[in-house]
Amino acid sequence: MTLTRPCIAITPGEPAGIGPELVAGLGDAFPEARLVAIADPALMDNVGAAVTPFDPSADPAPGQLEIVPVQLDAPVTPGVLDPANAAYVLETLRTAVDGCLQNRFQAMVTGPVHKGVINEAGQPFSGHTEFLAERTGAPMPVMMLAADRLRVALATTHLPLRAVPGAITDERLSRVLRILHDDLIRFYGLPRPHIVVAGLNPHAGESGHLGREEIETITPVLERLRGEGLNLTGPLPADTLFTPRHLADADAVLAMYHDQGLPVLKHVGFGHAVNITLGLPIIRTSVDHGTALDLAGRGMAESGSLQAAIREAIRMSRAGG
Amino acid sequence: MTLTRPCIAITPGEPAGIGPELVAGLGDAFPEARLVAIADPALMDNVGAAVTPFDPSADPAPGQLEIVPVQLDAPVTPGVLDPANAAYVLETLRTAVDGCLQNRFQAMVTGPVHKGVINEAGQPFSGHTEFLAERTGAPMPVMMLAADRLRVALATTHLPLRAVPGAITDERLSRVLRILHDDLIRFYGLPRPHIVVAGLNPHAGESGHLGREEIETITPVLERLRGEGLNLTGPLPADTLFTPRHLADADAVLAMYHDQGLPVLKHVGFGHAVNITLGLPIIRTSVDHGTALDLAGRGMAESGSLQAAIREAIRMSRAGG
Repeated sequence: MTLTRPCIAITPGEPAGIGPELVAGLGDAFPEARLVAIADPALMDNVGAAVTPFDPSADPAPGQLEIVPVQLDAPVTPGVLDPANAAYVLETLRTAVDGCLQNRFQAMVTGPVHKGVINEAGQPFSGHTEFLAERTGAPMPVMMLAADRLRVALATTHLPLRAVPGAITDERLSRVLRILHDDLIRFYGLPRPHIVVAGLNPHAGESGHLGREEIETITPVLERLRGEGLNLTGPLPADTLFTPRHLADADAVLAMYHDQGLPVLKHVGFGHAVNITLGLPIIRTSVDHGTALDLAGRGMAESGSLQAAIREAIRMSRAGG
Repeated sequence: MTLTRPCIAITPGEPAGIGPELVAGLGDAFPEARLVAIADPALMDNVGAAVTPFDPSADPAPGQLEIVPVQLDAPVTPGVLDPANAAYVLETLRTAVDGCLQNRFQAMVTGPVHKGVINEAGQPFSGHTEFLAERTGAPMPVMMLAADRLRVALATTHLPLRAVPGAITDERLSRVLRILHDDLIRFYGLPRPHIVVAGLNPHAGESGHLGREEIETITPVLERLRGEGLNLTGPLPADTLFTPRHLADADAVLAMYHDQGLPVLKHVGFGHAVNITLGLPIIRTSVDHGTALDLAGRGMAESGSLQAAIREAIRMSRAGG
């Protein structure tokens, strides 16, 4: 009896960054899956990857990197951004998403892109998460990072700090918590996931002395969702939440905003954290680092985060694909 | 030759919390200093401390806890708050501060107080830091927490999140950074301390796409202070700042607000973090935990943070007293 290997689409991201060489360097680290780069074959050849065209019905040898070709629009110099290739980057993402929606791929793993150069090329792009949500018609993608036993999801993501309090609405919190709850069941095999929720204000508002959002919005949402059976603790002060007492029995933490939740996660998971998008009809994981243009082409980049992202994508595709 | 031992005033804080028993349990952990509880002698007796009246000219045996008496107003039941003793708590603080200003004590270490019960008693009190600043006439106290090799100072402290962006002004940032710079020299023997400064917005504003405070306020302040000789890096994204690459040569991190800087610090320093107030004319350190009313009187409280706070106060009094 053979277990069918999941096909994992990998977008190396910005072609002048470290993404392509990280993908080329994966070797036979994942014999339990088929890894399919969505990239320009010449680019992958330049970074030393031996690729074979992806054929869904084939059964290539373990460690054989497969490819779905997308053509670059301009030659690539490692470390040098070129807006001429922004359309290429987005096309690799579209190809991966569509292949996941059509079930040719069981998950997609994204390398780092450079938002600035994509915007410079006149393409509106505020991030992978938003792009994937729009392409898949998902109303509320939820960003979660994982490292070791710590999982941190965010109620808001890439907003100016000034805009965060206004974005913590009953509707948003309710939707994010339901998605997090459902996806922890589906992808992590947790029958009744325990989610620990941070307050918005320091000391979770200290009974209203340091802000009223906990009293007016967060606590009522948590109480209503508890009534629906969700296993929620909070709102807790963010500064004491990330200590063994609270984390010991937490399956995930919900932080209210980016810099409340991610500094601890990236401190803990330096070099091996995985970014996971929940709330999509497809499975998507990502590296947690940037394009590292200064390292590109020098063979110095560390692949720990990419490997962790692929491992997580394979695991999720087996659990809930 | 004998080295004069510094006299460290200790306020046990809320009398119904774990503070008194933590002080009683210090034993002879600090033979290099004289520890002076500012407390009710009967309360300290109840928690098992053998005390002797403080006499500046005496030379008590190492490990002998000394006391400056302040009378409780009502009997204490461990774990049960009583507004009748709020005035007592504040009087212990005043006694310690005034003793430091008069150089009877070389530093003060504070145990946990309960803000709510003090306010309930009709005493305006928003925290130790603000109380000490007012009592000593210090215009801009700076809160810094330390654990292991990590030191995190805050540009703003106990503000609703909504009020934070407006509080990050040129004046505040400049004053906080100068105090941090000066006190790192004075108390830590660093000739040219390297301070790593976080941005206010996620990704430090990402070139203005996620907020403009970095461009309009933070970066100009850093550039001006660099011109005065301060060694500053930033503004950096808070989520990647707490990784070895940036922390390796940082003497302190300046976070813009409470929940941006303290979750990492308390995760790292769980049970042994110290809270230090800079910018005062006196030396003050504190435990980083609360009154733990549920543990009071049961002999279960851990004294790691109090011991670390005393150790730091002794060290600071030798370095810059």
